[in-house]
Amino acid sequence: MSQHKVIYDTDPGVDDAMALVFQALHPDIALLGVTSVFGNGTIETTTRNARYLAAKFAPGTPVACGAAAPLRRAAPEPLASIHGDDGLGNIRPDTHAQTGSALDPRPAHRFIIETVRAQPGEVTLIAVGPLTNLALALAEDPRIATLVKQVVIMGGAFGTDGFLGNVTPAAEANILGDPDAADVVLGAAWPVTIVGLDVTQNTIMSTAYLASIRDRAGDAGRFVWDVSRHYEDFHRKSAQLAGIYVHDSSAVAYVLAPHLYTTRSGPVRVLTDGIATGMTIQKPATMPEPAPDWDSRPACKVCIRVDAPAMLSLYEKTLCGTL
Amino acid sequence: MSQHKVIYDTDPGVDDAMALVFQALHPDIALLGVTSVFGNGTIETTTRNARYLAAKFAPGTPVACGAAAPLRRAAPEPLASIHGDDGLGNIRPDTHAQTGSALDPRPAHRFIIETVRAQPGEVTLIAVGPLTNLALALAEDPRIATLVKQVVIMGGAFGTDGFLGNVTPAAEANILGDPDAADVVLGAAWPVTIVGLDVTQNTIMSTAYLASIRDRAGDAGRFVWDVSRHYEDFHRKSAQLAGIYVHDSSAVAYVLAPHLYTTRSGPVRVLTDGIATGMTIQKPATMPEPAPDWDSRPACKVCIRVDAPAMLSLYEKTLCGTL
Ligand SMILES: [Ca+2]
Ligand SMILES: [Ca+2]
Repeated sequence: MSQHKVIYDTDPGVDDAMALVFQALHPDIALLGVTSVFGNGTIETTTRNARYLAAKFAPGTPVACGAAAPLRRAAPEPLASIHGDDGLGNIRPDTHAQTGSALDPRPAHRFIIETVRAQPGEVTLIAVGPLTNLALALAEDPRIATLVKQVVIMGGAFGTDGFLGNVTPAAEANILGDPDAADVVLGAAWPVTIVGLDVTQNTIMSTAYLASIRDRAGDAGRFVWDVSRHYEDFHRKSAQLAGIYVHDSSAVAYVLAPHLYTTRSGPVRVLTDGIATGMTIQKPATMPEPAPDWDSRPACKVCIRVDAPAMLSLYEKTLCGTL
Repeated sequence: MSQHKVIYDTDPGVDDAMALVFQALHPDIALLGVTSVFGNGTIETTTRNARYLAAKFAPGTPVACGAAAPLRRAAPEPLASIHGDDGLGNIRPDTHAQTGSALDPRPAHRFIIETVRAQPGEVTLIAVGPLTNLALALAEDPRIATLVKQVVIMGGAFGTDGFLGNVTPAAEANILGDPDAADVVLGAAWPVTIVGLDVTQNTIMSTAYLASIRDRAGDAGRFVWDVSRHYEDFHRKSAQLAGIYVHDSSAVAYVLAPHLYTTRSGPVRVLTDGIATGMTIQKPATMPEPAPDWDSRPACKVCIRVDAPAMLSLYEKTLCGTL
């Protein structure tokens, strides 16, 4: 098959880093660029991390710096308790000899626009942070919606696994990071698939799984282990989990192996006000009642089930080079 | 065991009628009174139906007329497409010889207050319509919250079965009927269990099941069959279902056999503004993150799974007198 040409829009972030390694090592993905966004850390932190990761695992891949704050709100606090003070589980990328990839002169949203326009119908956007860059790209050039191959988003929660959020009872972190942008992005006329907590919290890398990758996947395996120590501590404390949820890598897995995911079709709205700000609500296509706030919008695919063992096997084989 | 002393707050409604028959025929329930509320029909319709049903199945039970409209909104349109023009599946209770129970002189909320105060710690409220009467009772006498044995509510949806609503993508009918009242009732310091779509849409009376009750449960069985014909048509058209969801009777089943339900504990909020008005959102007790809009409120139990065959067997045996 031909490769998936991917722009990876990311706020690294531990799981962002693990998903970047996944993309860099999988032969079916051609990484056209990495675009940074605020989120797990400040834009300075996430951009530094994106450059570090690109230089280390995908040398030569352009990195473009994106939004420092949501469209209409103040930037959230960095999630140091989850991702460490450096956004990468306290592995201290600043102390490594590596200088990081050179920065593309364009802002992230223009990098997206120009890359999509240069290869119409070919580019997949994998977005695993707040959706500000994608909303800015749509605002500047709405027609890219029809030129993108597909958009795969890690974000949101629809309750099928019992949770409607992780940061609040009603909101997942990436969507809450910029709910106004998310409502724009999910309402645009591009083919969107949403990989949210319904599947990412049902895909768990155990400590033993991560140790096996550490021991069998060379430098990448060692990196995945090191970068995930602090993150695993967070999961142990907050969710009594001996392992980690697989958030951002699940969006990559969807691109590579969509058959591992059961999806539900229907328009999705994001709440932008009130106590449930950041909540994602789908009107399932099977619902007959009219719902004017949904009915005028295009359908998104929402992942509601995953073959988790197969997803974990795909990640492991990619890192170990045993595909 | 001693009987459950129940006030049944209801907007009959086909499934309300089926749940009243269930309570009237189960030996462990002592029906102290029926209170009507707008909802499936106007207050005139639901009160007429409550009186008709009480006279027919629980003669001597007081009926008190409740709220005609939500606390702060206009009354919704009657759901004639679901419950028929008469609210009872077009069985035309007005043409029957029966006159219906005499009406208690008190408004429903005062009937609730005085009945609860007369038997402190003993009264179970089963509420299967908009929650206006309960909110009015709390407003007039907040201390009844500590005097009620328990409150069991049919309403809301939490997404575990894939749906967050039935009237809108985000709201179930009873809660949407008066979201302001619902947010008050779910925030009061009484022990509340919520029996919502997560379990009621996973409990289905098939056509064959209803026919069997028709043939084996005498007058009550014939009534349950007749009253559910229009309702079953609605389910066939809207959900391609050869049978009916068991909404209000599930609240009764929870009172009789709570072990058939798996519950999740945590405070619940109801959205009262915006496109998701009427949405119920629980903060699961297992969620460690602070959530000020939830954390100050008492925990409710939310039903997330049901042993549906056992629930259906309980209803059937109650109606057929084979408990
Ligand atoms: Ca991320
Ligand atoms: Ca009802």
